[in-house]
Amino acid sequence: MKALYLDSRELTLRCDLQAPSVGSEEVLLKVLLAGICGTDLALLSGYADFNGVPGHEFVAMVIETGDGVDDGLNGKRVVAEINQWCGECNQCARKQYSHCLSRRVIGIRDHQGCFAEYLVVKANTLHIIPDCIDDRQAVFIEPLAAAFRIVEQLQSHHYQDLMLVGAGRLGQLIARVIALQKKRLTVVVRHDRHRKLLQHLPLTCIEEEDVDVKSVDVAIDATGRESGLMLALSALRPQGVCVMKSSYSLPVTVDLTQLVIDEIMLMGSRCGPFESAIEALATGLIETESLIDATYSIDGHQAAFEQVKQKGAMKVLIKP
Amino acid sequence: MKALYLDSRELTLRCDLQAPSVGSEEVLLKVLLAGICGTDLALLSGYADFNGVPGHEFVAMVIETGDGVDDGLNGKRVVAEINQWCGECNQCARKQYSHCLSRRVIGIRDHQGCFAEYLVVKANTLHIIPDCIDDRQAVFIEPLAAAFRIVEQLQSHHYQDLMLVGAGRLGQLIARVIALQKKRLTVVVRHDRHRKLLQHLPLTCIEEEDVDVKSVDVAIDATGRESGLMLALSALRPQGVCVMKSSYSLPVTVDLTQLVIDEIMLMGSRCGPFESAIEALATGLIETESLIDATYSIDGHQAAFEQVKQKGAMKVLIKP
Repeated sequence: MKALYLDSRELTLRCDLQAPSVGSEEVLLKVLLAGICGTDLALLSGYADFNGVPGHEFVAMVIETGDGVDDGLNGKRVVAEINQWCGECNQCARKQYSHCLSRRVIGIRDHQGCFAEYLVVKANTLHIIPDCIDDRQAVFIEPLAAAFRIVEQLQSHHYQDLMLVGAGRLGQLIARVIALQKKRLTVVVRHDRHRKLLQHLPLTCIEEEDVDVKSVDVAIDATGRESGLMLALSALRPQGVCVMKSSYSLPVTVDLTQLVIDEIMLMGSRCGPFESAIEALATGLIETESLIDATYSIDGHQAAFEQVKQKGAMKVLIKP
Repeated sequence: MKALYLDSRELTLRCDLQAPSVGSEEVLLKVLLAGICGTDLALLSGYADFNGVPGHEFVAMVIETGDGVDDGLNGKRVVAEINQWCGECNQCARKQYSHCLSRRVIGIRDHQGCFAEYLVVKANTLHIIPDCIDDRQAVFIEPLAAAFRIVEQLQSHHYQDLMLVGAGRLGQLIARVIALQKKRLTVVVRHDRHRKLLQHLPLTCIEEEDVDVKSVDVAIDATGRESGLMLALSALRPQGVCVMKSSYSLPVTVDLTQLVIDEIMLMGSRCGPFESAIEALATGLIETESLIDATYSIDGHQAAFEQVKQKGAMKVLIKP
């Protein structure tokens, strides 16, 4: 099959790879459309030491079911949770599947990704996509779920004023999700384009220099940069919550004494509820089409990755 | 009056200071007994750039009331919240008085402390001590309230297994408070003495090398050392909460990406509810007498501070 293959930080198109064979409790998927994510760019720079087929945002069709899997799944359009859990560890026993201690992660850790014609995943990680969500929407389900994770994590907190730092690929989705929550949202934007993509939403865009210190209850860093995190922290009122929705490439030095004095809560946030993302797309609550910059065939992968690396770039899709 | 005075990191006994005069909404207190805290030692090393009379753990008698204050307070035995709030800022409007934006803090920031014969505080920061709590217990109210703060902050979290790193002065109180919560508590101890002080409590003491990684829901660092924090973080299960109950003297470098991957929550914790501490002492739920190493008159302050600096030292009291 055709697939993009990452080896020692170099990504090449290979046509010599065998399509994976389906085991029990697994399904074979034909990938319909995939999205390039910031994490994919990080993998190319050595993040997670991943070698193999990258890619984890996708929509696919079930074309073969393994032993123990309902064969009614054949022909269904699906997405899969990126965390392929073991079902046996302490975390799985607590139903914290995305924190399975021996999880494999699609296109990130010990598991082939979706920049390929075919892909095998565990059947119990699938979500069937309703017909009203088209492929171009469905590729957003995984990152949109990650955005919904923030709301899930803030469930038991009282807050009214939020600030989002960063309005890139993930930031745009976070802004859309938070805008549904009937809170006051301010977004710190760097690019005019990002600002325009947010203009239909009930939120306020500002620039970095206009951030008021100690002014919000929740600050979300979606920049992945130390400077973004520091800006988010500075904007927090005492007892505020800082959500880190980013992978930081280097260890970051933080003034923990200030966090103690102001009783700040620093919260890591990763994968989220696919159900919420699917529902928001199905009901039209979240719009994603404007976030797609281009679609390339897998043969055009070099141009696709070049485009996604441009400043201010949004989602670039790959059709395997 | 007699008072200990900190000037450029040097602490001396002075007899030439004027007793403070009481203003409206204030009371004049005669300090009965005071405790030396880790923060006092930090002040001596330059923390918070404080010059003046240090000390913030105390019990006192009201001897004069200012305008606007009920004179029935005269003769009452009291403690005072260390955060002397303004009542006018945004934080005070939200009733987050201990996070008042222009607060003065007794013996720490812009406010004279309790290592003195007399002290003036705002009347609305007082708590009257019931007769069943003696002076030697009452000096523990402030740090005990800080320990109760952890329980308050964890209120909306689900947790069963806690680990406390550090069983020094504050750690002992935290252990006593957590032991009331019907959870599983493990305490990482360094000194045999600390272990003995905990042996009557329903908890398990272990040494650093016996900490299991990813084994607890909540880890509390009460060491103030970077190594203590790192140990606490390593012990946390995914989605765990790390409570920082310490002042870290230097900025600390943290691997935030690991915090994101495991969705860890890092939570600063400072001052707590005096009411809970008073109730726990009044009902005998918390025992503190065994934590007192010695009591010195203010003239013996040098010996008192020498003693409290010894490894494994517990509470040393000063009688002004």
